[in-house]
Amino acid sequence: MKVINIADKFSCFQDHWSPKIIGEMNGQEIKLAKIKGEFVWHDYKEEDELFIVVKGTLKIEFRDRTLEINEGEMVIVPKGVEHKPIAEEEVFIMLIEPKGIKHTGDVKHDLTVEKYDKL
Amino acid sequence: MKVINIADKFSCFQDHWSPKIIGEMNGQEIKLAKIKGEFVWHDYKEEDELFIVVKGTLKIEFRDRTLEINEGEMVIVPKGVEHKPIAEEEVFIMLIEPKGIKHTGDVKHDLTVEKYDKL
Repeated sequence: MKVINIADKFSCFQDHWSPKIIGEMNGQEIKLAKIKGEFVWHDYKEEDELFIVVKGTLKIEFRDRTLEINEGEMVIVPKGVEHKPIAEEEVFIMLIEPKGIKHTGDVKHDLTVEKYDKL
Repeated sequence: MKVINIADKFSCFQDHWSPKIIGEMNGQEIKLAKIKGEFVWHDYKEEDELFIVVKGTLKIEFRDRTLEINEGEMVIVPKGVEHKPIAEEEVFIMLIEPKGIKHTGDVKHDLTVEKYDKL
């Protein structure tokens, strides 16, 4: 059991679109990611995903709309909902999602991470 | 699906030790609470609990030590671990824990909330 400083953890990596695991509880992993640019359209068949924006402004495109999530805001993307995160400037996000989730669902892409690093 | 502004949600209530549900994903509830003073010793037999400190300094007493969790820090209290949160000054926390968790585990106390409000 340890106290985790979220800003300190963000200072440990610079790469984009590669979520790092900082904790686990009840089968869910808490991850941090830095993102910049456009991600790939994907969904998760069985998993909801919580996005919390720690720094910057995240846009998430859905097939029927786009949401803008600013610092201090969060959104839950339910399972089965296709989405595409976009960060026009660099954004720091916290993600909470089930352990073992595939980064880009059933989609394979150059940005797909096969195994998440732990911080 | 909606964007949730965490500070706005905190401005909707003033009572202490009464977590409010702001979202749900994968059987977990995301709650906000304002706390001040000492809580009651308790544990959860089957549920881990994530504390994220949004404002102030939270102390959590365990039987063998005390942790101090400052703004921007988090801690996961594993199932079965007795703990007692303490806020010397008012603290704003985000909690993530399984839906249906009993506020104070098997302990009954004046501070025990039987049903969580949704915001």
